[in-house]
Amino acid sequence: MSELSTSRIIVAGGGIGGAANALALARKGAQVTLFEKASEFGEVGAGLQIGPHGSRILQHLGVYDEVIAKGVVPKNLVFKDAVTAETLTKVDLGRDYQQRYGGVYFVVHRSDLHSALVTAAQRAGAELINDSTVVDVVTEGDQAYVTLGDGTVHTADVVLGMDGLHSTLRKKLHDDKPVGSGYVAFRGTIPMEEAELAAELDDVVGYIGPHCHFIQYPLRSGTMLNQVAVFQSPAFLRGEEKWGSADELLPAYDHCHDTVKSALKHMWTDRWWPMFDRDPVDEWVDGRMLLLGDAAHPPLQYLASGAVMALEDAKCVADYAAEDLHGDNANWPQILRAVNAERAPRCNRIITVGRMWGDLWHLDGAGRIARNELFRTRDTSSYKYTDWLWGYDSARDRGLAHIGA
Amino acid sequence: MSELSTSRIIVAGGGIGGAANALALARKGAQVTLFEKASEFGEVGAGLQIGPHGSRILQHLGVYDEVIAKGVVPKNLVFKDAVTAETLTKVDLGRDYQQRYGGVYFVVHRSDLHSALVTAAQRAGAELINDSTVVDVVTEGDQAYVTLGDGTVHTADVVLGMDGLHSTLRKKLHDDKPVGSGYVAFRGTIPMEEAELAAELDDVVGYIGPHCHFIQYPLRSGTMLNQVAVFQSPAFLRGEEKWGSADELLPAYDHCHDTVKSALKHMWTDRWWPMFDRDPVDEWVDGRMLLLGDAAHPPLQYLASGAVMALEDAKCVADYAAEDLHGDNANWPQILRAVNAERAPRCNRIITVGRMWGDLWHLDGAGRIARNELFRTRDTSSYKYTDWLWGYDSARDRGLAHIGA
Repeated sequence: MSELSTSRIIVAGGGIGGAANALALARKGAQVTLFEKASEFGEVGAGLQIGPHGSRILQHLGVYDEVIAKGVVPKNLVFKDAVTAETLTKVDLGRDYQQRYGGVYFVVHRSDLHSALVTAAQRAGAELINDSTVVDVVTEGDQAYVTLGDGTVHTADVVLGMDGLHSTLRKKLHDDKPVGSGYVAFRGTIPMEEAELAAELDDVVGYIGPHCHFIQYPLRSGTMLNQVAVFQSPAFLRGEEKWGSADELLPAYDHCHDTVKSALKHMWTDRWWPMFDRDPVDEWVDGRMLLLGDAAHPPLQYLASGAVMALEDAKCVADYAAEDLHGDNANWPQILRAVNAERAPRCNRIITVGRMWGDLWHLDGAGRIARNELFRTRDTSSYKYTDWLWGYDSARDRGLAHIGA
Repeated sequence: MSELSTSRIIVAGGGIGGAANALALARKGAQVTLFEKASEFGEVGAGLQIGPHGSRILQHLGVYDEVIAKGVVPKNLVFKDAVTAETLTKVDLGRDYQQRYGGVYFVVHRSDLHSALVTAAQRAGAELINDSTVVDVVTEGDQAYVTLGDGTVHTADVVLGMDGLHSTLRKKLHDDKPVGSGYVAFRGTIPMEEAELAAELDDVVGYIGPHCHFIQYPLRSGTMLNQVAVFQSPAFLRGEEKWGSADELLPAYDHCHDTVKSALKHMWTDRWWPMFDRDPVDEWVDGRMLLLGDAAHPPLQYLASGAVMALEDAKCVADYAAEDLHGDNANWPQILRAVNAERAPRCNRIITVGRMWGDLWHLDGAGRIARNELFRTRDTSSYKYTDWLWGYDSARDRGLAHIGA
C-alpha cells in the first residue's frame, strides 16, 4: 500500500483541475474527497488545446488513450494575419516536435477531457460529491477543517483549493480580484460539412489582427469545426462595467479579411466569455490548504495552458507527496510549500508571458509590421521560444525536463 | 556647348537642395539664377547623415572629395535599445556595403555640405542672390514669370520651387499644411574629449526606445561628437499649439538607460526643432514650375534621406533635361512631368516608410518586444530591407540601379 494511503485529502472544486488532482492523488492511494458546487459534473465551452506538456501528464495519469480517441492531432499551428489572411508562420506539430516534447499537441472538446478525468478519478477510488460548495477552510494543529455551504464541517490532512477564477478560498490569502482584459470570446462549434473552408482543415489556425483574433480547428475526430472569436470590447474601452455583447461581434472584425468575417455567422451569440486573469501571486499556501488551478494562477488563454497548468499541478502534488510523505502526516505542510515553490514561478511566467503574447497578437501599426516580419523570418527549425513552455516538467531530478527552462 | 546653354532657370530657395540643383544644372551649361531670402547662405543644425544614394550623387557633381574631407565615414549603423542599452543590430558600412551601393555612408556637418554646394554652384557659373524671396511664379506661354518680395519680376524658361517645408510656392498646387509628428529634436555638438564615452565612437549609434530616441555620431574628422535627442512632446499630446520645450527634455528620458540620460546635459537647450513632414502629393508641376526638395516631399528624419532626396532631385532634373531638351525650350514642360513621374513615387515612399520607421523606433510594450527580437534575429548579411532606399538611381536605363527596387 502507498505511503499516501493514510492521507485524507479534500479537493474543493470539480473542474478539469480538481478532477485531475483528485485522480493523481487517488492513484497514489490517498483518500480523496472532492466537493463540487454544481449538481452535475460538466464543462461549458467548446474546444480546448492541450500541448505536449499536458498530454505527457495525461499519459502519466492513464487517461491519454481515452482522451486522444475523441481528440484531433493537428498537423500545424498556423498563424495568419487577420487583415490580409497571409500565413505568417507555422509550428510543425509532427514527429520531430512530438519527440522533442515527449507528447502530442492535440485539441479536444472540454467536456470530453473533463468526463474522462472525472470517471478515472472515481475509478481510482476518489469520492466526487456534487451540490457541495466549500465556503471555508481553517487549519488547526495538523488538521484542516472544511466548511460546506450546508454548514457541515469535514476534516482532512490537506485541502486543495481549486474553486476557479472566482475562487472563494483565494480570499484567505489575497484580497485581489480578477483582472479584466477587455477582450471577450465568442465560441461556436458546427458540423465540419457546414463550414465554408477552402480546404480540409487539419491545423489549428489563428488569424491575428489589430484588437482581435480568430481561431479555427477541427474537433471530435474532424467531424466538427471549433471556432473562437476574441476581440477588444468597445464597452470595456468606454469604461462600462458590463462589457462584451453579441452586438459587438461583427463590427469588431470590420477591418479583417473576408475569410474571417464570413466565418463569424457560425458563432454562438447567446453566450460569451469576457476574459479575465489575475495578477501573479507567489503565496498559495494557507496552513494545510494549497490553492491550485485557476484559483492560484488563472491565465489568459493565449498560451493555451490554463488547463495544462492544472494537470501539471496534479502531477507535482502527487509526485512530491509520494516522494516526501514517508507515512508522516506532519510532512504535509512542507510538501505544500515545496509544490508552491516549484509551481509559482512556472505558472506566474505563463500568466505574464500570456498577457504579452495576447498583446503581440493584437498589435496595430508599426508593431504589427514588426510582429509580422518577425513571424515570417523566424527560424522554424528552432524551439528556442517554446522549450520553456512545452518542455517543462516538475520532476525534481529534471530527468524528463532536459530541454525545459 | 551644352544643349542646356540657352535655358534660363530660376531656383527659388538656397538650402542644400536649391544649391545642389543650381550646381547640377549649371554644370550642364544652363543659365541658373538662385534666389535666397536670407542675407547669407548658411544652414542651421548640426550633423547630417548621407547614405550612398547621396554620396554617389556628390561624386557625380564633383564635390564629393571636398565634402568627405570634412566628414566621417562611420564603421556601423548601430541600433540599441534605449531602456537597456543592449545592442539590437548593426549595419556594417564597410567594403561590402560600399561596393553594393556604389558609395559610402558618411556624416558631415550640415554647413560643411551646404557651403561646398554653394561654392561649387557659383564656380559652375550659377548666380546665387541673397535677400530675395520668391513670392509668386506664373506661367504664360513658354515663359515663367517670377515675382520677388521687392516687386521685381524675372523671367525664366523653368523655375524650381525649392523653398522648403513651409513652401510658399507649394500653395500654387496644394492647400495642405506641414503635419506635426509630435516629436521634437534637440541637438548638440561638443568636442569629442568632453564626451563621457565608454569607448571611441566610430559608429552612428541610435538608442531607440518608447516614445523617444537618441543618436550619437562623430563629426569633423572625429574631433566633435554630434548628438540628437528626439522625443514625443507632452505638450503636443495635450493638444497645445506650441509644443516642444527645454523643460520637456530630461523627463522624456526618465525610463531610459543611464548612458542616454547622462548624455542629455550636452544638448543645446536654447533651440529645438519640432518635427514636421507633409502628406505625400503626386503633383509637383504648375506650368513651368516644378516643386522639388522639401517643398515637394519633406520627410521626417528617420531614414536620413531628406537632404539626399534633394540631391537625387538635382541629378534627375539635370540628366533628364540634358537628355531630352534637344535645344528646344518647348520640351521643358514634358521634362518637368517626367521628373515628377520619376521622383514622386520614390520620395513619397520615403515619406511613408519614414513615418513607419519612426513608429517602429518608438514602440512600447509587446510592439517593442517584437521589434527588438526582429532586430536581434535579422540576417545581417541581407540587404533586402535597404536596397530600395540606398540602391536607387533615377537613371532611366537603370544602369546603376541594378539593385534598386
